[in-house]
Amino acid sequence: MHPIVALATPPGTSAIAVIRLSGEGVIDLVDSIFKGKRLAKQVSHSLHFGSVMAGDEVVDEVVVSLFRGPHSYNGEDTVEISSHGSPFVVQKIMQTCISAGARLAEPGEFTRRAFLHGKLDLSQAEAVADIIASENESQHRLAIKQMRGGYSDIIESLRQELIDFAALLELELDFSEEDVEFADRKKFLDLIQQMLTAIEQMICSFQLGNVIKQGIPIAIVGKPNVGKSTLLNALLREEKAIVSELAGTTRDFIEDTLQIHGIQYRFIDTAGIRETTDLLESKGIERSFEKIRQAEIILYMADIQASVDTIISDFQSFSFLPEQKVIILLNKSDIGDSNAQQSDSKEVVATLSGRRTLEISAREKRNMDTLISVIEAVSSEQTKRFDFIVSNARHLEAFQQAKASLLLVQKGLQEKMSGDFISIDVRTALYALGTITGKISSEDVLSSVFGRFCIGK
Amino acid sequence: MHPIVALATPPGTSAIAVIRLSGEGVIDLVDSIFKGKRLAKQVSHSLHFGSVMAGDEVVDEVVVSLFRGPHSYNGEDTVEISSHGSPFVVQKIMQTCISAGARLAEPGEFTRRAFLHGKLDLSQAEAVADIIASENESQHRLAIKQMRGGYSDIIESLRQELIDFAALLELELDFSEEDVEFADRKKFLDLIQQMLTAIEQMICSFQLGNVIKQGIPIAIVGKPNVGKSTLLNALLREEKAIVSELAGTTRDFIEDTLQIHGIQYRFIDTAGIRETTDLLESKGIERSFEKIRQAEIILYMADIQASVDTIISDFQSFSFLPEQKVIILLNKSDIGDSNAQQSDSKEVVATLSGRRTLEISAREKRNMDTLISVIEAVSSEQTKRFDFIVSNARHLEAFQQAKASLLLVQKGLQEKMSGDFISIDVRTALYALGTITGKISSEDVLSSVFGRFCIGK
Repeated sequence: MHPIVALATPPGTSAIAVIRLSGEGVIDLVDSIFKGKRLAKQVSHSLHFGSVMAGDEVVDEVVVSLFRGPHSYNGEDTVEISSHGSPFVVQKIMQTCISAGARLAEPGEFTRRAFLHGKLDLSQAEAVADIIASENESQHRLAIKQMRGGYSDIIESLRQELIDFAALLELELDFSEEDVEFADRKKFLDLIQQMLTAIEQMICSFQLGNVIKQGIPIAIVGKPNVGKSTLLNALLREEKAIVSELAGTTRDFIEDTLQIHGIQYRFIDTAGIRETTDLLESKGIERSFEKIRQAEIILYMADIQASVDTIISDFQSFSFLPEQKVIILLNKSDIGDSNAQQSDSKEVVATLSGRRTLEISAREKRNMDTLISVIEAVSSEQTKRFDFIVSNARHLEAFQQAKASLLLVQKGLQEKMSGDFISIDVRTALYALGTITGKISSEDVLSSVFGRFCIGK
Repeated sequence: MHPIVALATPPGTSAIAVIRLSGEGVIDLVDSIFKGKRLAKQVSHSLHFGSVMAGDEVVDEVVVSLFRGPHSYNGEDTVEISSHGSPFVVQKIMQTCISAGARLAEPGEFTRRAFLHGKLDLSQAEAVADIIASENESQHRLAIKQMRGGYSDIIESLRQELIDFAALLELELDFSEEDVEFADRKKFLDLIQQMLTAIEQMICSFQLGNVIKQGIPIAIVGKPNVGKSTLLNALLREEKAIVSELAGTTRDFIEDTLQIHGIQYRFIDTAGIRETTDLLESKGIERSFEKIRQAEIILYMADIQASVDTIISDFQSFSFLPEQKVIILLNKSDIGDSNAQQSDSKEVVATLSGRRTLEISAREKRNMDTLISVIEAVSSEQTKRFDFIVSNARHLEAFQQAKASLLLVQKGLQEKMSGDFISIDVRTALYALGTITGKISSEDVLSSVFGRFCIGK
């Protein structure tokens, strides 16, 4: 493919800038503007000091990295020019490369070529963009896992088995007058069931994947005056947090994000929730409850000074979703009764509610470390439910399409429909799965995938 | 020296980021966090694919560049880690390197080490910062020339000759009771004269060096209504110029900068200059004339329709400095008389004024190309007057100190003063010259030189 060139580092003034070129003839191209050792005679993965020349004029003294295809990022001969980090110098080197026959690369074009040369599948290529865009530990970990293969292998092996069956089905069609069955229907049904289970798992993981990208939502819930805001402030300060107010939230609930050991959490403050009979205000409260229902983790707060009966009955007046992880926090342990009595309350509340229960003092930041460990433990339980986590909406859509088609195939098999009917849905499922790894791809999909890359990648 | 680490590329999201490490033990340090080939066993100037690990966790897949000292930028073992260009990833890799024993580099610390290891002299190191900061062709060309040696060799060879004489003078002092003269006074005077000539040339070049950095000042001058503003606008548009309004100029004269083939010009618009007898307004005019005196090149405009006598007498009413390059432009060649007559006017004006004369039409942009060529020719005449151009104020100061001391040496020799008196001034001159290349350097000077570098260089 035609040699392309792009600045691979951010624009701006810095120690060094890297200009990347790849494509057919790129080594000769760089040799024509580089004064130093002749690159054409050098081995792959070597570094060479020299000067970029525009005619007789030295543009800059540079170090050149030489990668020979297929042992390069995108499988093509690749040269990276490491120059002084001056925007003026970068512009001159780019112009010199373009004069020598390269053209400016489009966004993601280097990685697109990596995909086209089979160095990465499409979902791995997407993970490269995710790594670059990652802003916290969990996003980064997801993206690294996906770049290193992720669920591509599973999809491909299931897809391969399905292809084998599809081939047998097609064979039956060729011999349709003889009414033979090459494809074992029992085994076929088993495979479909196995695929459905795997795909449903993937679909299910998307919510978590999305949650990880956005931050795990935590709601702090409880009767008025139990110390909800004090706890939120304590948590936010505790970890010298990266705190930001999310735009677009209403004044009823301010969301704050907090990173604890690299995991991002989104705190939903429900300070707005008050008991009321006022019809107008209850509308706002309805919205608050709606928000609480989106939380993965609930921190339910009560006043440890209250009687166990009151605590339990108040707690039961709230209703949580079965999948929500609820932790009960008995606050204000800094005042009043002795520690022994408080521990008793804790034991009883834990037993009666069947929930993890902690005694804390938000005001004095007592037991905050334990609380944070519990939050971490709970959120990692969630993550561990899945071998792989889908966080890409394009993949989700493909999995959903595949699932719909496989359900039709299952139905067809159960109803002993003829091979030609089943065959259509098998093909649709294969197509959908193929789009994830890019075994099947259209120009539209590629443009949308690589369009979100930066130039130079 | 202790291993240091820094991001060498600008902060921000991009295809790749480069993290640079250098210092003693840096190869083992990187081996402890890099999963791939063992770098300790690899040859210099080689590239290696692998993963940066934080414990068991993959931080990123990277390419590592290995340079073994002394064959590296700063003479130390150096490793550059080329990672995905995510601020999050960069931060994690930096943290990993710091945990493994590196410390954050200070601004310019890599280049400072290059200086300390004798890979660059101080004036070359300064040129590295100049290259990074260069914004146009001429700044860049100056900086490249200086980085590649510039006047360092000349200074060092003159300094060496002076050192030899100084040694002979010191010897005389040791034998002072015997009243001998080891140092040939005649040869010594010749050397001092030769040094003074070279140094005066350098000092003289500073104005031009500064002018090149700032842009060559051009004033467009002439009687009212000869088309000065039209010409300025025509020039600015003509070259699809990088035009900017300089801040801090008064409303009397707006300065525009224009790059023509990479050379930066600073146009001084003298539209504010009008004939007047009003005392208050004449203050402003005085300031305009002051500005005009700073111009290197004067474009004097006249109306070609006027009589030759008027043109010449108007021209003579302006007075220019002897070193200013004046070009006479006969404007409005698009209207009125025939071409033949206009050419006659041009010849006569050129002869009578003794100045380069062009006929143009600013309104119709006639002869703009010729005008631009003439401006370029005139400005390159200026540049060619000097073998080397000093553009660094620190160097200027050192040259001035050296000159002052050498003049004292010269006087002392001429007045046949004794060696011990002369010796003091010789040492002062040697010291001043030594500070330019950094043969003599103080912590203060190094801190101020390297403090203006970016981190990672």
